Amino acid sequence: MTAATTMAGAQAVPGRQDAIDLFERIRQLSFDGVGVSRESYGPTETAALDALVEWADRHGIAARTDPAANVVFSLAQAGDQAPIVCGSHVDSVPQGGNYDGLAGVIAGLLCLKRLKDEGVRLAHPLWVAGMRGEESAWFGKAYMGSGAILGKLKADDLALRNKRSGRTLAEAMASVGADVDSIAAGKPVPWVSGVRAYLELHIEQGPLMVARKWPTAIVSGIRGNIRHNLVRCIGEPGHSGAVPRWLRNDAVFAVSDLLMRLDEHWRVLLERGNDLVVTSGVMGTDPAEHAVSRIPGRVDFSFEVRSESTETLEEFYRVMRAECDEVARQRGVRFEFDRRIESAPATMDAQLVQLLLDTSAELDLPAEKIPSGAGHDAALFANAGIPSGMIFIRNENGSHNPAEAMEIDDFMAGVDVLYRSLPKVT
Amino acid sequence: MTAATTMAGAQAVPGRQDAIDLFERIRQLSFDGVGVSRESYGPTETAALDALVEWADRHGIAARTDPAANVVFSLAQAGDQAPIVCGSHVDSVPQGGNYDGLAGVIAGLLCLKRLKDEGVRLAHPLWVAGMRGEESAWFGKAYMGSGAILGKLKADDLALRNKRSGRTLAEAMASVGADVDSIAAGKPVPWVSGVRAYLELHIEQGPLMVARKWPTAIVSGIRGNIRHNLVRCIGEPGHSGAVPRWLRNDAVFAVSDLLMRLDEHWRVLLERGNDLVVTSGVMGTDPAEHAVSRIPGRVDFSFEVRSESTETLEEFYRVMRAECDEVARQRGVRFEFDRRIESAPATMDAQLVQLLLDTSAELDLPAEKIPSGAGHDAALFANAGIPSGMIFIRNENGSHNPAEAMEIDDFMAGVDVLYRSLPKVT
Repeated sequence: MTAATTMAGAQAVPGRQDAIDLFERIRQLSFDGVGVSRESYGPTETAALDALVEWADRHGIAARTDPAANVVFSLAQAGDQAPIVCGSHVDSVPQGGNYDGLAGVIAGLLCLKRLKDEGVRLAHPLWVAGMRGEESAWFGKAYMGSGAILGKLKADDLALRNKRSGRTLAEAMASVGADVDSIAAGKPVPWVSGVRAYLELHIEQGPLMVARKWPTAIVSGIRGNIRHNLVRCIGEPGHSGAVPRWLRNDAVFAVSDLLMRLDEHWRVLLERGNDLVVTSGVMGTDPAEHAVSRIPGRVDFSFEVRSESTETLEEFYRVMRAECDEVARQRGVRFEFDRRIESAPATMDAQLVQLLLDTSAELDLPAEKIPSGAGHDAALFANAGIPSGMIFIRNENGSHNPAEAMEIDDFMAGVDVLYRSLPKVT
Repeated sequence: MTAATTMAGAQAVPGRQDAIDLFERIRQLSFDGVGVSRESYGPTETAALDALVEWADRHGIAARTDPAANVVFSLAQAGDQAPIVCGSHVDSVPQGGNYDGLAGVIAGLLCLKRLKDEGVRLAHPLWVAGMRGEESAWFGKAYMGSGAILGKLKADDLALRNKRSGRTLAEAMASVGADVDSIAAGKPVPWVSGVRAYLELHIEQGPLMVARKWPTAIVSGIRGNIRHNLVRCIGEPGHSGAVPRWLRNDAVFAVSDLLMRLDEHWRVLLERGNDLVVTSGVMGTDPAEHAVSRIPGRVDFSFEVRSESTETLEEFYRVMRAECDEVARQRGVRFEFDRRIESAPATMDAQLVQLLLDTSAELDLPAEKIPSGAGHDAALFANAGIPSGMIFIRNENGSHNPAEAMEIDDFMAGVDVLYRSLPKVT
């Protein structure tokens, strides 16, 4: 027992110093001069897993590697009860933050140690999955690790190349010991069959919990999305001084018009109680031909809508296409769309959500639900039919950047919610 | 006399074949594989002037080079009557069109030859200025040739560097024989004192005359402008899925909002009879940090308003700044502005405009006025107090590109307007 356990609240949760040490150890292992870089199926990801295995070993926690090169931690426990899997990923984006993903694995490990230290035996034993390959930054695809676990990686996915090294995903997976043939055959790993529940603790990647002053919150669902990475608005270039308003086909004004129409639909849909966020993250005139005194003849932009509801996604998408037609007609432009990409929303298990809310309330933490805007491994487990739940930890400055700022007290509060919820899973 | 003179209308204007030959000769001299490139104060500009001098020489037209390395053509004529100067520039943008500028010089030369052929003696003798350095594409500054003529080039201007070669404007001017010391001292060239009128024929650089089916038109004035080459809208980046609408400071939505407000003001000002065009030719999120799933934290864009009226320019500029404040307040962003750049509108001389309109009507050409959206050397002469007038020639596909498409008949009609207006200048 450390001195911290004598303090009040989150500071009294066992494992605080272990958490601090583990985060710091792995931060040092993966520091890239700016943030942390733990490449999916790369050496720093492996080093992070090795550090966790070493720690587990020191505390009598068993670790085994699955055919997809993920590590599953557990206590020696007789019987074949369906396990609760608590997990997250250990990789990071380049120059990322230390907590995105890693926090969920460390949270699980702290629970295993606490179960051991306190001699608690669960009806459903806890397994902790330290997963690889969740970030899309490396291969252009997310959830590779959980995808491989669930037998969902396709040959196309395995042929994707690392944006930096050019190595294929199959090569990278093989290099860390994964059974690529089995993954390519779509075989789920053996341990995933009969999992009772999947629980994931993760930092919030938005500012809502900071704004609302919630150290922890329970995820209601994971927003799906519909995207076009590239929409092209094509007008007619011209001399900025020489073309009167009525003869213009200005692509910048047309796209601005479109976005203001979508902004208004968004506002109205929120007022009606829908869950929705809309983003055009990439936009620009063409540097090869734009000029201050040239009417822009082309604007490229991205479109993304996210919602917990498939119906809302589809409704907004229809509205977007209809407004494009209208803007095209009124402003003499046309819109070209690349392939529509979609990712289904994932609903968290209602019973698990309620259980996590109840535990939060017992601990005087907010019994608040929040949608997850970012995708998580939990979405794959949920959509594979495994009852899933997520705990979010307040985190200043968003994720995927070195300025991530999770307070260790908030983290320990979340670990406590997780730990105290485990025995309630029946 | 050529066979063409027996035909009707513009085809009967003397000099048609000379025009065709001169345009073709100079196009060949300056063809760059895509369009024409006649670099300001560079070898192809000189070659074009040389070709004109050679033609003039062949037809008994005198040519002299002024201290700013421009060429002035004239007929031998006794007396010291104040001349009418007809001119334009021979340089072009890189990969430009053959008619922008050159048409005005050839028009003047055809008038000189016709005066000689027809034995017409004007009260104010015609001088034709083949000017250098009008295009800003090379040194980032426009009207260098006419600026030098009028003693308006500053030391700063002379220190500007060619974007390709890195050579300064002073070096480039010296290399073609200009008296750089005299130009640096701000001395106008001797011939410009006491000019009675400046007339310039130029292709239209917009689509209005094509839309209205006007082969020729008379320029009412040259739009001035107010510009910011770079306005920066600064919001707050964030995960596109994780930040709800009320916590967003989305720079793309903010700039779109701003532009739609400006669009509405523009519409209303036009309805009230103001002359106005508004353009944001360059716009974009930051490629170093933007992403489809990232709320854009910054958008850079250019702002330009053009009008024949200084009051309208200033009014619209005030409205723009006020709307920026309003958008900043409502959307939690801020706007940063680089240096405001302005160019004064130039009014064409009312008497010359009427005279050119009258001649047009006599020739059954449109007696129509049109603002010039693009700047021209004529603006400098007008703003230096020299009564100025311009004739526009219909031109499909705009200028500054190889697809410029001026019909030779339209050109000859404009030459005829110019020629028949000369004797009316009293």
